[in-house]
Amino acid sequence: MKILDGKKVSNDIKNEIAEVVSQMKENGEKVPHLAAVLVGNDGASLTYVGSKVRSCKRIGFESTLIHLPSETTEAALLKEVEALNNNDAIDGYIVQLPLPKHIDEEKVLMAVHPDKDVDGFHPTNFGKMALDMESFIPATPYGIMELLRRYDVDTQGKHTVVIGRSHIVGRPISILMSQKGKAANSTVTLTHSRTKDLEVFTKDADIIVSALGVPDFLKGDMVKEGVVIIDVGITRVPDDTKEKGYYITGDVDFAQVSPKASYITPVPGGVGPMTIAMLLKNTLLARERHNNRKNA
Amino acid sequence: MKILDGKKVSNDIKNEIAEVVSQMKENGEKVPHLAAVLVGNDGASLTYVGSKVRSCKRIGFESTLIHLPSETTEAALLKEVEALNNNDAIDGYIVQLPLPKHIDEEKVLMAVHPDKDVDGFHPTNFGKMALDMESFIPATPYGIMELLRRYDVDTQGKHTVVIGRSHIVGRPISILMSQKGKAANSTVTLTHSRTKDLEVFTKDADIIVSALGVPDFLKGDMVKEGVVIIDVGITRVPDDTKEKGYYITGDVDFAQVSPKASYITPVPGGVGPMTIAMLLKNTLLARERHNNRKNA
Repeated sequence: MKILDGKKVSNDIKNEIAEVVSQMKENGEKVPHLAAVLVGNDGASLTYVGSKVRSCKRIGFESTLIHLPSETTEAALLKEVEALNNNDAIDGYIVQLPLPKHIDEEKVLMAVHPDKDVDGFHPTNFGKMALDMESFIPATPYGIMELLRRYDVDTQGKHTVVIGRSHIVGRPISILMSQKGKAANSTVTLTHSRTKDLEVFTKDADIIVSALGVPDFLKGDMVKEGVVIIDVGITRVPDDTKEKGYYITGDVDFAQVSPKASYITPVPGGVGPMTIAMLLKNTLLARERHNNRKNA
Repeated sequence: MKILDGKKVSNDIKNEIAEVVSQMKENGEKVPHLAAVLVGNDGASLTYVGSKVRSCKRIGFESTLIHLPSETTEAALLKEVEALNNNDAIDGYIVQLPLPKHIDEEKVLMAVHPDKDVDGFHPTNFGKMALDMESFIPATPYGIMELLRRYDVDTQGKHTVVIGRSHIVGRPISILMSQKGKAANSTVTLTHSRTKDLEVFTKDADIIVSALGVPDFLKGDMVKEGVVIIDVGITRVPDDTKEKGYYITGDVDFAQVSPKASYITPVPGGVGPMTIAMLLKNTLLARERHNNRKNA
């Protein structure tokens, strides 16, 4: 059993990006600039955005945090988005979700210019991804692909079972892993809440990507010997004995499943840390493409 | 065994659309207007486009055929596309593929305005489809969904195996059938050229959608009793005894497979006729949305 160490790999990626950025600086070029829009004061969102901004600093990106009050109107937010689209200094930006209930999320995400959509949530980017065109791939599935690539996990012709059909993980990873290329060319089955006899699929799977959000859902008797496990579920379980009042756990019963697995991602320290690394990678790509468009 | 009669259903759909159009005329409203751009004189393309234009006439749509010489430059074609985007009289249009080799197909399809892209090939429409948003669904997968819906084929929680990962059939149908809704909620496995032991999947399948293009590929011993068969493969097999010099056949060995099937599409007369019907349906939708945007 080998751990797919997302913490280590994400640090490798950040260091690689930092090197590219330091080279950019040396050449007197503009460095990538990521902006993040946060509406309101949701605790988890504050943590995520803060972490993204800190990561930018660490690797030499410029960053801008636009923190708006929770009573911001949809119109005002759309104006902010429009300004970011037109601001040539910003290479890419994210609008942190969830947005307050009085704002139509879809409308806001549709307003983000696809060329600056480093979250890869805009339908134009999603469609380009599905059609094998250059796009921004959403950070979590992109991180899974990168983890598989860096550990040289053999996915060619393997049966990959994805659990969960969400727009940000299950759906895109099922598309990516069934395309041509490295860490892909898999035969992918996408399972979900309406799937009958899920165990029949998980027991047959060479690779399982679980993005369900149900702690310890996948048990040892549901998988076969040698399976590769990618655990995307991150749930905070209340626990008074912990300083934070909770602990983090995944979809996979690690104690039961890991002895049977050939590779497995831990939670925390697996897919989670990859997500920020790939957001930074997308921002670097946005900078490079921005530059190419200007020089075209 | 029940035949999924695409010829009959496509006629039903055309009649329904014709009724809507005749109502539009009675109300003094503008009727849908489809344009088709054809570059060169490829025989099959001429046939397809001709058939589309005739269908428009039959159901009361306006139609425009823009037939350009095969030596048309990419720039000239892009200008034509731009003109169609800006022509308020045209609700939707298609650019017939394949284009001559000196023209970049992707570039042309990207230039079609998503609101007029009744083929559903633009990444913005493809992405919206994958993200459960209002879009234009490519005609062939849309036709398959409609056929399943009209015959009330139970797909909920069933195992659907799709053969072939093309952008116009395999990929979109694998997405559509695994979404929520009628004729969907299936557990979908997308198989392709790199799949190992395809038979293991086809034998387990409750529903098989074959979009491979290899005549008589799917044999009786590759499927289970009661399977639903959707045969999208349409191949012209040379045959001197036929007046046309060929006959049309599908991916499925009909003689072997049909006795085991609960439902099966014939070739010809199955998925094929549905494609034009759904293109017309998309054009009607384009007209209605065009109108809604103007009144908004």
